[in-house]
Amino acid sequence: MPFSFLKNLSSKFGQRRQPVVLALYLGRWLLISALVGAIGGSASALFLVLLDAVTEYREADPWIIWFLPAGGFLVGWLYHTWGTTSAAGNNLLIQEIQKPTRHLLPWVMAPLVLGCTLITHLVGGSAGREGTAAQMGGALADQLTKLLRLRPRDRRTLLICGVSAGFASVFGTPLAGTVFALEFSTIGKIRYQALVPALLAAIIADGVATAWGVEHTLYPTIEVPALTVWTFGATLLAGICFALAARIFSWASHNVAAFFQKQVLYAPLRPALGGGLLLVCIVLLGTTKYIGLGIPTIVAAFETPLPPYDFLIKIALTALTLGCGFKGGEVTPLFFIGATLGNALSPWLPLPLELLVGMGFVAVFAGAANTPLACTLMAIELFGAPSGVYAAMACVVAYLFSGHTGIYGSQIIGNSKN
Amino acid sequence: MPFSFLKNLSSKFGQRRQPVVLALYLGRWLLISALVGAIGGSASALFLVLLDAVTEYREADPWIIWFLPAGGFLVGWLYHTWGTTSAAGNNLLIQEIQKPTRHLLPWVMAPLVLGCTLITHLVGGSAGREGTAAQMGGALADQLTKLLRLRPRDRRTLLICGVSAGFASVFGTPLAGTVFALEFSTIGKIRYQALVPALLAAIIADGVATAWGVEHTLYPTIEVPALTVWTFGATLLAGICFALAARIFSWASHNVAAFFQKQVLYAPLRPALGGGLLLVCIVLLGTTKYIGLGIPTIVAAFETPLPPYDFLIKIALTALTLGCGFKGGEVTPLFFIGATLGNALSPWLPLPLELLVGMGFVAVFAGAANTPLACTLMAIELFGAPSGVYAAMACVVAYLFSGHTGIYGSQIIGNSKN
Repeated sequence: MPFSFLKNLSSKFGQRRQPVVLALYLGRWLLISALVGAIGGSASALFLVLLDAVTEYREADPWIIWFLPAGGFLVGWLYHTWGTTSAAGNNLLIQEIQKPTRHLLPWVMAPLVLGCTLITHLVGGSAGREGTAAQMGGALADQLTKLLRLRPRDRRTLLICGVSAGFASVFGTPLAGTVFALEFSTIGKIRYQALVPALLAAIIADGVATAWGVEHTLYPTIEVPALTVWTFGATLLAGICFALAARIFSWASHNVAAFFQKQVLYAPLRPALGGGLLLVCIVLLGTTKYIGLGIPTIVAAFETPLPPYDFLIKIALTALTLGCGFKGGEVTPLFFIGATLGNALSPWLPLPLELLVGMGFVAVFAGAANTPLACTLMAIELFGAPSGVYAAMACVVAYLFSGHTGIYGSQIIGNSKN
Repeated sequence: MPFSFLKNLSSKFGQRRQPVVLALYLGRWLLISALVGAIGGSASALFLVLLDAVTEYREADPWIIWFLPAGGFLVGWLYHTWGTTSAAGNNLLIQEIQKPTRHLLPWVMAPLVLGCTLITHLVGGSAGREGTAAQMGGALADQLTKLLRLRPRDRRTLLICGVSAGFASVFGTPLAGTVFALEFSTIGKIRYQALVPALLAAIIADGVATAWGVEHTLYPTIEVPALTVWTFGATLLAGICFALAARIFSWASHNVAAFFQKQVLYAPLRPALGGGLLLVCIVLLGTTKYIGLGIPTIVAAFETPLPPYDFLIKIALTALTLGCGFKGGEVTPLFFIGATLGNALSPWLPLPLELLVGMGFVAVFAGAANTPLACTLMAIELFGAPSGVYAAMACVVAYLFSGHTGIYGSQIIGNSKN
């Protein structure tokens, strides 16, 4: 009895003190999120400026792609020498969020992934940027763990904040960044415990990057048709196609990586060899439209019909680039793949071109990364609120049909999809 | 060995068959969701039309409020006679979603909550409509359980679909309806397993209600200021105020209900007595602006300064109405409370009136129902995508500060908020 009385009292006292506890919690995480946001947003800003510079350089002087094997070797050698622990990239982040250990992410991960992503884009690899931003954000944020003496549970929140800050600031989408960071470590689960810190870090990072003068690609505000049985059914069908593309992409990436790891024992040779193969492909294709981020093609997809095989070539080149060991993210290539696939579906489905392209843009990513809510929010942030319902359907169906694997091998299954 | 071989084989076979399994899953839930959506959407449409009619009648002839005690007795008597099992309302739904039993929700729940909500609004109670829509959707959907011979796990998904359909169609917000249905049964958790069916049911129900000619209140598209330290800080402060209002509302509702249950033993007398008290309050206040849904005041809050005590009076009258046993939802009163509180905060905080009102509209609800993501989506669907970041901050902070209780006593804690 005395024990239960004490417990009762302390719980009542706890209730009384609750507002103070919550205010302290908010204040503490506001400070930490501000730090993480400032660091992550600044890192993204630097990254985006440099990425623009190398992309411009490559486009002005496309002969630089002859350095693909050399650039590949350099990337491979840098990771072989300095980055053995951080080579797992996003998967390392995911593992630490799932089960925080006492081993901090090495700070060298940040400059390493930054430099190697820039090399990848300079010589003409086909890659993205969110992986780089998330890894920089995560690795830099993690350096605060010691400084602030955070417990493992708080370190997890800190890492989520780092990812949220990186993702939000690199795409200019704070809500998608927040939910992506909460959603990406486990399939079918959101880490609500980190909701407040992740949102604050995302908003601050986006604000900081904007303050540094970063400008994001502007996509059209998509007008949507009234929902009928036909548009509804067409959206479901499109979602299944987007899931297929996501599956092919994940499958190709895994297999290319496995092939190189098995066949080439000296790690730095893998991207060198892969770079050579890429070079051959680009020369045979006779175009540079499939390398780099591919933003011009993504923008064009919203306006004019494109060749229906664009998405397949982009899948192949990106799987080759990232599978052999070049660095960068998967997301912008996935935008490219989805947008061009949506474009290709346009003659066959009774939906406006713009809408199909926008749905593909987010839905292939939703299927490959298993992040349907983040991708729905991304559509809303990039294409406006009216696109939300169609985007949600496409993302959710792509998520369902993409199966229980994806681009992040370390994701665990929190809840089955069906 | 032979066992593991068999397991391997069957898992490989499972992988092969996966697309077929998923297609069957989608097809099955598409049919069920279409049924639930059609039923829930039609029920909401009927409800909204009748609700408009009784509201018009009351506004044309306000003397009907003298029937508050009689109406209260009728509501109490109807539930006492026919609705003992369904009196728990939303909490019953929550319990069945958490742990599906073999006892179906009684179909009588649907006409009962519909009729009693209409009586409540006719005689001038202060109440909402989402509880009614969710309970009609849930109870009607549950009747399919036997017809389709669903297993308990599928029955849970079916109930979530019913709530999703009801919520989406009564407010015209399919995305908020989906996430609300996934979010509301457990604090800090989303039921991803039901993602696809809930979204389909929401979209179909909203489409069906629209096809029946239902029109929803149009709120202004909110323009937002650039994010600065001041607007950021003001939003956090506003979020804390909204949480406070949510706490006061939850506290008042629970206590009024407990008071009536303890002091008045014959259940039908509770709303009769409560109705009498309400009548006295309304006569003393000398205005009918705080009764019914209160949509005109919500709309006015976006445009002109209102008395700063509006939200308190609405809290008191709603807690009295629902606590003594009248029927209806909590959400529209929570919109009223949040909108008028946002309006009242406007002279003190460096944010535009419209934005503060819109944030309050969703954030008090987010705090009281513990559904921050659904409420963020609701802001986006009602006020446009640009309001999303501010609304998210307000909702998330209101969610954090509202504590681990809320208007739904049966909610369990899935994940701590801090």
